[in-house]
Amino acid sequence: MNIIVPVILSGGSGTRLWPVSTSTAPKQFQPLTGGGSMFLQTVERTKDRGRFAAPLVVCGLGHIAHVEADLAAAGIGDARIIVEPAARNTAPAIALAALAAVADDPAAMILVMPADHVMTNVAAFLDAIEAARPAGDAGALATFGIAPSHPETGYGYIAAGDPVAGSPGVHAVLRFVEKPPRDRAEAMLAEGGHYWNAGIFLMRADRFLAELERQQPAMAAACAAAMDGAHIDGAQVHPDAGAFLSSPSDSIDYAVMEGAERVVVAPVDPGWSDVGGWAALHDLGAKDETGNVRIGKVIAVDATGNYLRACEGRRVAVVGISDLIVVTHGDDILIVPKDRAQEVKAIVEHLAAQD
Amino acid sequence: MNIIVPVILSGGSGTRLWPVSTSTAPKQFQPLTGGGSMFLQTVERTKDRGRFAAPLVVCGLGHIAHVEADLAAAGIGDARIIVEPAARNTAPAIALAALAAVADDPAAMILVMPADHVMTNVAAFLDAIEAARPAGDAGALATFGIAPSHPETGYGYIAAGDPVAGSPGVHAVLRFVEKPPRDRAEAMLAEGGHYWNAGIFLMRADRFLAELERQQPAMAAACAAAMDGAHIDGAQVHPDAGAFLSSPSDSIDYAVMEGAERVVVAPVDPGWSDVGGWAALHDLGAKDETGNVRIGKVIAVDATGNYLRACEGRRVAVVGISDLIVVTHGDDILIVPKDRAQEVKAIVEHLAAQD
Repeated sequence: MNIIVPVILSGGSGTRLWPVSTSTAPKQFQPLTGGGSMFLQTVERTKDRGRFAAPLVVCGLGHIAHVEADLAAAGIGDARIIVEPAARNTAPAIALAALAAVADDPAAMILVMPADHVMTNVAAFLDAIEAARPAGDAGALATFGIAPSHPETGYGYIAAGDPVAGSPGVHAVLRFVEKPPRDRAEAMLAEGGHYWNAGIFLMRADRFLAELERQQPAMAAACAAAMDGAHIDGAQVHPDAGAFLSSPSDSIDYAVMEGAERVVVAPVDPGWSDVGGWAALHDLGAKDETGNVRIGKVIAVDATGNYLRACEGRRVAVVGISDLIVVTHGDDILIVPKDRAQEVKAIVEHLAAQD
Repeated sequence: MNIIVPVILSGGSGTRLWPVSTSTAPKQFQPLTGGGSMFLQTVERTKDRGRFAAPLVVCGLGHIAHVEADLAAAGIGDARIIVEPAARNTAPAIALAALAAVADDPAAMILVMPADHVMTNVAAFLDAIEAARPAGDAGALATFGIAPSHPETGYGYIAAGDPVAGSPGVHAVLRFVEKPPRDRAEAMLAEGGHYWNAGIFLMRADRFLAELERQQPAMAAACAAAMDGAHIDGAQVHPDAGAFLSSPSDSIDYAVMEGAERVVVAPVDPGWSDVGGWAALHDLGAKDETGNVRIGKVIAVDATGNYLRACEGRRVAVVGISDLIVVTHGDDILIVPKDRAQEVKAIVEHLAAQD
């Protein structure tokens, strides 16, 4: 039984956490939640070399410096960095890493993790990996299903079916459910046996590649050619750009998982958040007696339920406001109601249109 | 008939416009409304040397540099600056200026104006001065009553009585009404003949000093001694500190006007505002199609009725907020609902308590 190769997907450029997160310095590299950046927290989750092999990081050209700085901060010297010539969504990104893993070891097992999630209970996650491991060894593609706390309409769901022998708590996947309307989400919560799809996967690299070849032959061929022509520069792997650019762009869910054979789900409750917007950071943050999260120099008078973030060198003073997001970053100041925090992207679009 | 000596009271240190207004750089010296600072706008109101003599400015020690800079910016080289050794409210401040005026000319007429008001229709104000002039020459103490636009509870009112012969539109003052409750303010508006007391006065300096001596002999004596012992330094007049500090502290309204003989009111509608808080600046500002006042780099998406002020070098971006005050100044950011803008003083008190 081989140890698990962490594959850290760091290609995102989250705009919903503007002004802190930008395309050149996206959220996974920002110390938003305490305890270092989310990228750093992700690599530290699988730092135990008794259980995990050296990680494979997949990122864009513009983020190599961020990745290298955070790996150094985490004291991780054995990672390889696969540099995407362009963004092609998660399926091709995982394919590049799977190809690198099987080149090292034909029986390699990969653990795919987005670099921009938070987990407050890593032990629960490690236990779920142990539970899913036997199914993965036997050739299943394992997803991790987050126990839902509320009828969230912003995530996809996984419906669990029959238990899988040999992997305690693990179930076959009945179906994937795309982001549901509210009533459907409520029904799934009431019914039970439904989990949030967190985009975390454990699987043999060869099984993933076989499913990719069966379902997405053009993508599989493009990624294989890209890795065949890869240029190695120290810890950096630069796949051939021309080959990779010819790949279709798609997510692992659509391209592989929804049509794959032998997909299982390992339920887990690791205190997970995808930190999908400023409201999530209010949820995650330590609150004062009136429900404000205060970061940096903040003066709050008769204010409740706000997320108040003053960056280095600034001071935020508020009176009489409720349930607002206030974020300063460099010369920018963002103000938006908590329940409309997703609309920050309208500002990013406005700024992009000005350029 | 002598020309009128403008007396500009610049001793205020408004805290309700924090963070822009502070005790070291109070609101009258800030370019808050466009067209330069309110101090500069005040001196320019009486710049015509055919109608007005060189002004007397009364200010505190800490504000001399601001006064000199604004006088230079206005091209006014003939002003004298009476420097208060300490703040003693308006009655002693006016007494110092009145004493300086009668020393130059025993029949001097003074026009007292706070330095932190805005007037959008200066011609109307100049007309009201002309109307009040004959009454002033005849020995009346003339107030200027602002035609009220709404039942404001934050101002004192003046009730007008019989017309004054020789001063068209001018009436004897029946009584002064302190800041009224809402229903009383509404009743005065419905009744008519009531005006806001703007703290602007036209009167012979000798008549003011005679009333002061009659009603406030200790104050009159202290101010006279302070000017007798004054030290002259170029355009600066420094009254004797020991003498001035012995003066009681009181406003002209309480100390003199309410008990004075022959007080008149000249009604006027000069587009007046005392700029008593950020909500007033929203009222005064140019608004976009959704009622936002935007100053500096501002991005507003689906936002209505806000006052959004980005200082040099900062950018304010808002989504989905209504009726908020957002002010950046240096490293400070203030956020408060428009209808609670007066509570900014709670922040100033909080900061003072920290020092």
